[in-house]
Amino acid sequence: MPTEGAAQTETLPGARPALPVVRTVGDLRAQVSAWHAAGKTVALVPTMGALHEGHLALVRRGRELADHVVASVFVNPTQFAPHEDFDKYPRDEAGDAAKLASAGCDLLYAPTVRSMYPEGFATSISVGGPSQGLCGFFRPQMFGGVALVVSKLFLQAQPDIAIFGEKDYQQLLVIRRFVRDLDIPVRVEGLPTVREADGLALSSRNAYLSREERERAPQLHVALVEAAAQIARGVELGIALDAARMRIAAAGFSSIDYVELRDAETLEPVDSLTRPARLLAAAWLGKARLIDNVPVPPTA
Amino acid sequence: MPTEGAAQTETLPGARPALPVVRTVGDLRAQVSAWHAAGKTVALVPTMGALHEGHLALVRRGRELADHVVASVFVNPTQFAPHEDFDKYPRDEAGDAAKLASAGCDLLYAPTVRSMYPEGFATSISVGGPSQGLCGFFRPQMFGGVALVVSKLFLQAQPDIAIFGEKDYQQLLVIRRFVRDLDIPVRVEGLPTVREADGLALSSRNAYLSREERERAPQLHVALVEAAAQIARGVELGIALDAARMRIAAAGFSSIDYVELRDAETLEPVDSLTRPARLLAAAWLGKARLIDNVPVPPTA
Repeated sequence: MPTEGAAQTETLPGARPALPVVRTVGDLRAQVSAWHAAGKTVALVPTMGALHEGHLALVRRGRELADHVVASVFVNPTQFAPHEDFDKYPRDEAGDAAKLASAGCDLLYAPTVRSMYPEGFATSISVGGPSQGLCGFFRPQMFGGVALVVSKLFLQAQPDIAIFGEKDYQQLLVIRRFVRDLDIPVRVEGLPTVREADGLALSSRNAYLSREERERAPQLHVALVEAAAQIARGVELGIALDAARMRIAAAGFSSIDYVELRDAETLEPVDSLTRPARLLAAAWLGKARLIDNVPVPPTA
Repeated sequence: MPTEGAAQTETLPGARPALPVVRTVGDLRAQVSAWHAAGKTVALVPTMGALHEGHLALVRRGRELADHVVASVFVNPTQFAPHEDFDKYPRDEAGDAAKLASAGCDLLYAPTVRSMYPEGFATSISVGGPSQGLCGFFRPQMFGGVALVVSKLFLQAQPDIAIFGEKDYQQLLVIRRFVRDLDIPVRVEGLPTVREADGLALSSRNAYLSREERERAPQLHVALVEAAAQIARGVELGIALDAARMRIAAAGFSSIDYVELRDAETLEPVDSLTRPARLLAAAWLGKARLIDNVPVPPTA
């Protein structure tokens, strides 16, 4: 799709059909403003690239909810701690662009680190509430970095809607929290986790798994589904969670960061099922830190 | 001026001519959206009320730069430390509305604390760079609170332009910094300090001064002007600053928080005049903490 504004777009050679790419805020805004001026709505799908079917489901949902879809690809350094996998995080812009085009994306925004965080950059955002505990405990740097980059992307692109996967459930609630707190005029939509046939949640980090680890990986999801069913039929919470941890360990995961039941809306710890809850887990399999979560409905 | 959108406005009884008032984000956005839809530009003048001619100069400048002017009046609790003057900060909404109307303001936005920071609020913003030192040292809570409330006001109102006084010079640079860092789509304009005939910078906190203190208060400005002139003609920086401190103390100020020369753009400490600089001071006179600043041009 050709750009209607004055945006400087390029077309990546690997993309079939061609997907326009912009790299500056000015070019991004020119395109989105042109769409808005024509009375069209715009959905944004923020990603770190290494795209899989889970991301493409977000793009397709964007097409259902809005007239145009912008995807951003930016591996955000501020959400990685120094010892984490920022450098080796998979990057394949041409491949990503081809996938985005095939899913109906209209525009790829791929800024540089330097343009997002120029010299003199001095602002940070902190979100309490749903960022506490779970991944917020094991990756204390992450949600501040997510809040910062997602705020910037929202204010750069000024979309009507933004779409995120429930696979990163805590991240989704953190985003809802600061969007509401800062009055950012964007509607945030969550989409259920897309899974492989064997139940493994799609994740760019699944690429870190060996063939043998890949075979064991779905046990994380199996353990959560089984524990959720136990909790729903009245098995004591501690017993259900212990059984889940044992199943995950028995599958060969080397360490378990957490398996916890939380309120589905506030992420506060819960010990009874009077409101919708969410069962969340994070565990290490080889070099991959896998996360997953499943809903647990309230008992009537 | 009647509202063109679906905003729920009220007219304050004390206001002559009548000034529409909105208290919710929805009503505020309805009015600003209606103006934008009609192709008009909008300036925002954020204030904490207790309005004086300095604020009204911002409103008049807003009228020059934009088609419509919105003023907000909100005494923001997050920028006051517990021991500071949040509770006794002067409040006079009817009086403020009358002044705003006379200066050509089109709309007053006066939200409640509860609507700005509802239960569950969990987000904070931190700005380094220009917030370091000066008032950032003596009031460590302030600039985070300013960044939070100004971000919210910008994203609530979505103005084209926002106007602030240079009397709060450090605040102006902090606002420019996070607006740029977070890509908030608002143009920030600074306006020179409005002063009494004797040089005292207009400030809502001047109301805390006794008659006798009011007579001594202009010496803060006199000391800065004199030191700036000394520095400009080559007097050694330390000598000029010491002379300023002595003059302020001699005028009866009970304690001096700082008298410092800083880079006019980054607020970094400077000891030579190769770039535009700013001489800034804060000192206590009775119950009032007064601040002021003057430009110091680079020597050729």
